[in-house]
Amino acid sequence: MTGPEMVNGFTEEHLSAQPPHIRGLIDRRAKVLGPGYQLFYSNPVEVSRGSGVHLYDSGGNEYLDAYNNVVSLGHCHPAVVEAVARQLSVLTTNTRYLQEDLLDFSERLLATFPAELDRVTYTCTGSEANDLALRIARAHTGNAGIIVTRNAYHGVTAEVAAFSPSLGPTSPLGPHVRTISAPDPLRHGDSVTDMLRDEIRSVIEDLQRHGFGVCALVVDSIFSSDGVQPFPTDLLGILAAEVRTAGGVYLADEVQAGFGRTGAGWWGFGRHDVVPDLVTLGKPMGNGIPVAATVLRNEIGREFGRNVRYFNTFGGSNVPIAAASAVLDTIEREGLIDNAREIGGQLLRGFTEIVAGHSWLAEARGAGLFLGIEVTEPDSTEPDRALAQSLVDDLREHFVLVSASGPQGNVIKIRPPLVFSAADAALLLERFAAAADRRRA
Amino acid sequence: MTGPEMVNGFTEEHLSAQPPHIRGLIDRRAKVLGPGYQLFYSNPVEVSRGSGVHLYDSGGNEYLDAYNNVVSLGHCHPAVVEAVARQLSVLTTNTRYLQEDLLDFSERLLATFPAELDRVTYTCTGSEANDLALRIARAHTGNAGIIVTRNAYHGVTAEVAAFSPSLGPTSPLGPHVRTISAPDPLRHGDSVTDMLRDEIRSVIEDLQRHGFGVCALVVDSIFSSDGVQPFPTDLLGILAAEVRTAGGVYLADEVQAGFGRTGAGWWGFGRHDVVPDLVTLGKPMGNGIPVAATVLRNEIGREFGRNVRYFNTFGGSNVPIAAASAVLDTIEREGLIDNAREIGGQLLRGFTEIVAGHSWLAEARGAGLFLGIEVTEPDSTEPDRALAQSLVDDLREHFVLVSASGPQGNVIKIRPPLVFSAADAALLLERFAAAADRRRA
Repeated sequence: MTGPEMVNGFTEEHLSAQPPHIRGLIDRRAKVLGPGYQLFYSNPVEVSRGSGVHLYDSGGNEYLDAYNNVVSLGHCHPAVVEAVARQLSVLTTNTRYLQEDLLDFSERLLATFPAELDRVTYTCTGSEANDLALRIARAHTGNAGIIVTRNAYHGVTAEVAAFSPSLGPTSPLGPHVRTISAPDPLRHGDSVTDMLRDEIRSVIEDLQRHGFGVCALVVDSIFSSDGVQPFPTDLLGILAAEVRTAGGVYLADEVQAGFGRTGAGWWGFGRHDVVPDLVTLGKPMGNGIPVAATVLRNEIGREFGRNVRYFNTFGGSNVPIAAASAVLDTIEREGLIDNAREIGGQLLRGFTEIVAGHSWLAEARGAGLFLGIEVTEPDSTEPDRALAQSLVDDLREHFVLVSASGPQGNVIKIRPPLVFSAADAALLLERFAAAADRRRA
Repeated sequence: MTGPEMVNGFTEEHLSAQPPHIRGLIDRRAKVLGPGYQLFYSNPVEVSRGSGVHLYDSGGNEYLDAYNNVVSLGHCHPAVVEAVARQLSVLTTNTRYLQEDLLDFSERLLATFPAELDRVTYTCTGSEANDLALRIARAHTGNAGIIVTRNAYHGVTAEVAAFSPSLGPTSPLGPHVRTISAPDPLRHGDSVTDMLRDEIRSVIEDLQRHGFGVCALVVDSIFSSDGVQPFPTDLLGILAAEVRTAGGVYLADEVQAGFGRTGAGWWGFGRHDVVPDLVTLGKPMGNGIPVAATVLRNEIGREFGRNVRYFNTFGGSNVPIAAASAVLDTIEREGLIDNAREIGGQLLRGFTEIVAGHSWLAEARGAGLFLGIEVTEPDSTEPDRALAQSLVDDLREHFVLVSASGPQGNVIKIRPPLVFSAADAALLLERFAAAADRRRA
């Protein structure tokens, strides 16, 4: 069963090219897994082991993993393995009992945020965190309207899928959802901030005209599925101000940009010099253990707390908290935010050089260890999705894992574990340059 | 901040009676946790360690845990600790790579279901599983209407909270949601099946009249928050048939009743001799590691799979699957389904004797290790919530953990880990009898 088209998704046309072992696994998946599952790459990767920045298949091949942003500390980081094993043999239960570890961690986590963001609720996934954040925002504002960017992704609950346009045209947006452009300075130049201010004013007016009012602007602080857009950094403050004036709140989705990834402090919104009303966290928070959270200003949660109770069986339970605590420790102890900035800088310089040598590479951009490279028609900004896919597939054949993103699927998306070293970065650049050279100049 | 009333929820009126250490922890919670958090018991329990059927507080007090249904194998079962620690040091990544362990487990899990239920999608929580199941059901049926029992609980996403009436009157149901009575043979006697058939016909007609149509009947197979109602067992088949005739599907929520809890096979619906269209799993699936799933008939998922992709970062990742696999193994190896039936039988006989000795205990009922005891006005079926709460609190003071349930909060809810022994059961009965004796005859 093949579902709707996905950037870098395996499709059945490539099935016959697979060796019997891989065909066997794909066949077994089709026989047991439910609807909507998809594999990466034209030639799917089997994984059986991970360590640091590497994944290994059952044949022992080593892949340089420049894509898995969940295992931010690297695959199988011993600090997380030990913390989880220890806690699992002591206790894991829920937040309806008093537990000091939950409080210790919450206080530490909140200390990484601006003082206004002073409360945290735990969930298991970023989807749940966004779902909860929206329920809270709706109770606070009394409004329904949601504004997201045109190819945003925020999660897969019914509520959140309805404002995740990147799920594609066959996954309908809610009637209360409006989209604005994501910033794209390559194509819009210096006018992008003015353009987006006009756009958000227009959708605000439209939401009000339809009686929805404005509940929330929801933005992933690195615009990941919009093609990785780190600039301009004056934009989010302007958009947030427009939304607040209209009675709405600004929710920063840090599921991808958070926990030091952008190399400029803990949170992606920090690069933008704006303080959100709510912030959602997920993926790297437990380095692979499911744990996520909604952070908010206390006053925003009052209406919700008065009327609704929220209990998430595993959210805030001891093992996820132990994992998250080990992640915070390790990011600090290993200086991973600085590393993300430094190695990210090395990658950006290297990719910028490679881009300069190829007419069909239009731009490299990024913040910290979250980078995007535009694959286009030669000497143009016209996206070339097929060429981007061929580059992703070529790198996979040469044991480097990256993927693609953006509304046209033409932006190579690179987001390695934060422990990526200078040598790892050099290898990634070398393999990328070689793959580019195997294409046209 | 105190939220809406919850059965067996701590309220601020009991704050001043707490010792300074506990007051300090409650105060810290209020300062960092988001809206909607609540504690159990008038006198909250601090937990610092768990082992088997026991929880321990930081003072070393040992509590007999007859309530935590997540740690079905007992707190800190070594099989799960080892499986998780081992897998975490080898690999944990997502389902967009090929992985044999995911397939091995899926095949084993599906083998515990009737043959028609032949596909599984993984999520992290029961809420996500129900949320996904509803999206699938909606795509399949083309309808919106949902039917649940009057005090049902199915989860906390925006979608699922809208059909979870037990969240209370301040958490509104969706316009497309209708409720029917839960079975309550104590109060409705033999007429309950006829009564519910009439009720479901009436709400089906009403959903159709409003243009919603019938999407799904969603039922927790043990009616947990409706007060634990194991009988009659001919009911679910009749209700499912009515819903199917109207074009809807039957979703069995096994988040609480599943994985052997009712002592009659793996799944609670098995006692009812009916095969659902979709089944959701959660809580005990990983003995504390967040893992959940939606199981379904392949043909039900076709429309969803054609239009929508579903990706859950942690759902089906290796560590949750390793935990779930260890749970399946252990249930089989330790004969826990048989144990649930036998020890559940011992408890039911014991509670029935205790009930006979007190005019204000109207009934003990249960299936396997899921039991409910009705606390009422003397010689009456009129619920007595305050008395039930005092019994729960008294047991907690005597180091036995249970809670209460039901639309009136008057049903003592007992659901110990499946490894409960005959001696544990004897101790629970002894303490319960003593607590009852401390009340009126």
